[in-house]
Amino acid sequence: MKLLVVGSVAFDAIETPFGKTDKILGGAATFIGLASSILKTDVSLVSVVGGDFPQEYLDLLTSKNVNIDGVEIVKEGKTFFWSGKYHNDLNSRDTLVTEVNVLENFEPKVPAHAQDAEVLLLGNLHPGVQLSVLEKMAKRPKLVILDTMNFWMDTGGDVLMEMIAKTDVITINDEEARQLSGEYSLVKAAQKIHTLGPQYVIIKKGEHGALLFHDGKIFAIPALPLEEVFDPTGAGDTFAGGFAAHLAKTGDFSFENMKSAIIVGSALASYTVEKFGTERIAEITAEQLKERMAEFKQLTTFEVDLDL
Amino acid sequence: MKLLVVGSVAFDAIETPFGKTDKILGGAATFIGLASSILKTDVSLVSVVGGDFPQEYLDLLTSKNVNIDGVEIVKEGKTFFWSGKYHNDLNSRDTLVTEVNVLENFEPKVPAHAQDAEVLLLGNLHPGVQLSVLEKMAKRPKLVILDTMNFWMDTGGDVLMEMIAKTDVITINDEEARQLSGEYSLVKAAQKIHTLGPQYVIIKKGEHGALLFHDGKIFAIPALPLEEVFDPTGAGDTFAGGFAAHLAKTGDFSFENMKSAIIVGSALASYTVEKFGTERIAEITAEQLKERMAEFKQLTTFEVDLDL
Repeated sequence: MKLLVVGSVAFDAIETPFGKTDKILGGAATFIGLASSILKTDVSLVSVVGGDFPQEYLDLLTSKNVNIDGVEIVKEGKTFFWSGKYHNDLNSRDTLVTEVNVLENFEPKVPAHAQDAEVLLLGNLHPGVQLSVLEKMAKRPKLVILDTMNFWMDTGGDVLMEMIAKTDVITINDEEARQLSGEYSLVKAAQKIHTLGPQYVIIKKGEHGALLFHDGKIFAIPALPLEEVFDPTGAGDTFAGGFAAHLAKTGDFSFENMKSAIIVGSALASYTVEKFGTERIAEITAEQLKERMAEFKQLTTFEVDLDL
Repeated sequence: MKLLVVGSVAFDAIETPFGKTDKILGGAATFIGLASSILKTDVSLVSVVGGDFPQEYLDLLTSKNVNIDGVEIVKEGKTFFWSGKYHNDLNSRDTLVTEVNVLENFEPKVPAHAQDAEVLLLGNLHPGVQLSVLEKMAKRPKLVILDTMNFWMDTGGDVLMEMIAKTDVITINDEEARQLSGEYSLVKAAQKIHTLGPQYVIIKKGEHGALLFHDGKIFAIPALPLEEVFDPTGAGDTFAGGFAAHLAKTGDFSFENMKSAIIVGSALASYTVEKFGTERIAEITAEQLKERMAEFKQLTTFEVDLDL
């Protein structure tokens, strides 16, 4: 099946305890596109960049068979730019700069060839933009996946709630799930979020892994324990990208296959954090993905036969 | 095999967002003994209580076939008492009262029938007391399991390090692992702790589950997501108790069986938090343990076959 992605294609400047970068390639749609390409999923991006965006970055995406017909180039505009500095534990960060630039008046255009995509991944963006992409589809996709964050909960109001109501799978982190639901228990939070629309709720817990809730069932997966997290930027986008790409690739939206999709997303995200920005995810092969998925299996397999 | 346990038998007074108790039955050895009894493990406790300790609490342990010959009663003394108040998220708490009482001058006595126990669980206590129990064994147990906490890292100094050096399996939480090792990454922390003695390092992460490290291998298990955590008191002790009891019961100290032991501990701990103090764990049957272990299996099972 086809996967259509809307999200930012951007510049990031990142500082971690291990070093800092100048403006490098970033953006939710970029990470998602690169993650999808590893699964050889038919993926198209909808986004916008400025005239300052290097051709080599666009070429990188194209070379990975990520379709960028839907990435508009506003020649007189500047590309979205984010700069942040991570704290020593890498679990929190300060935003130093946010220049919205061409994203300010972004009116997404969905190329004709992607309007019948069966899977739509709405990457982290203004919920109004996410909603407008859904409305531009020829028909409602079979699966709508929404990635959002606390910023839109603080500012997005009714539009966010309207978007959530039209969503099949929502991915948010634990604090966001608590904020959105007003419940501390993540089990109760997921129950409440189900009533807002999404049949599937994925709660990302960073170094503690992820939870999937559906129809009273729960799946839990730890994160792969890593010796070093070098740069967490894009890990959540990579996770969402791997998840959506696996579902689109297989065309199977069952709970069982969503579990596998979560492992795909987790495995790819565990690569992303090993280097700055997109550097690591851009070099990962299908073989390496399989290796890391096998590591997840080994990490979590146990026997429960008790002789009592 | 026989399991010998040293730890507190105590009074707790607990306040959570859901209610508060007067002085109720508590203490590390109590939770461990009750957890072990569910597995019908041959378990003996070494501890001390005061003349104020109710006979009915001792009778409860005896009725569960927990051997309390090693629980000294100091008639003129008072039982250890701890009182604490949990914050709203139940992840942190304030200690309101600690009355050490008879634990102050506790000189543990190991009954003759337990001096050849193959598995020794040193529950959270002064490391000097833990060490003295190890020294009183007829021969070195086949497996020495140490539970300790940040308080002893702050105050225990060389004695704690001497105890750790003689330990096979250490169980601590994530913050304690970081404190003990000076490493933020839990993978690096475990590597460093291995060099202090323990071949097996278990890192407890509360609502985020647990990790087992051994010889370059890692096992990770999420906690069972619960709608409501009523009272976390004793969850760590229950975990250690279930873990040690399974190993003693099976006599198999392989990495594979330690994984199962961690599931036993996690399953029992997930019951403990459902009511105040020992109330819930005291009523759990082997059948209920098996049910919850099956839930853990369901929670974490996934397929990784990728067609790429």
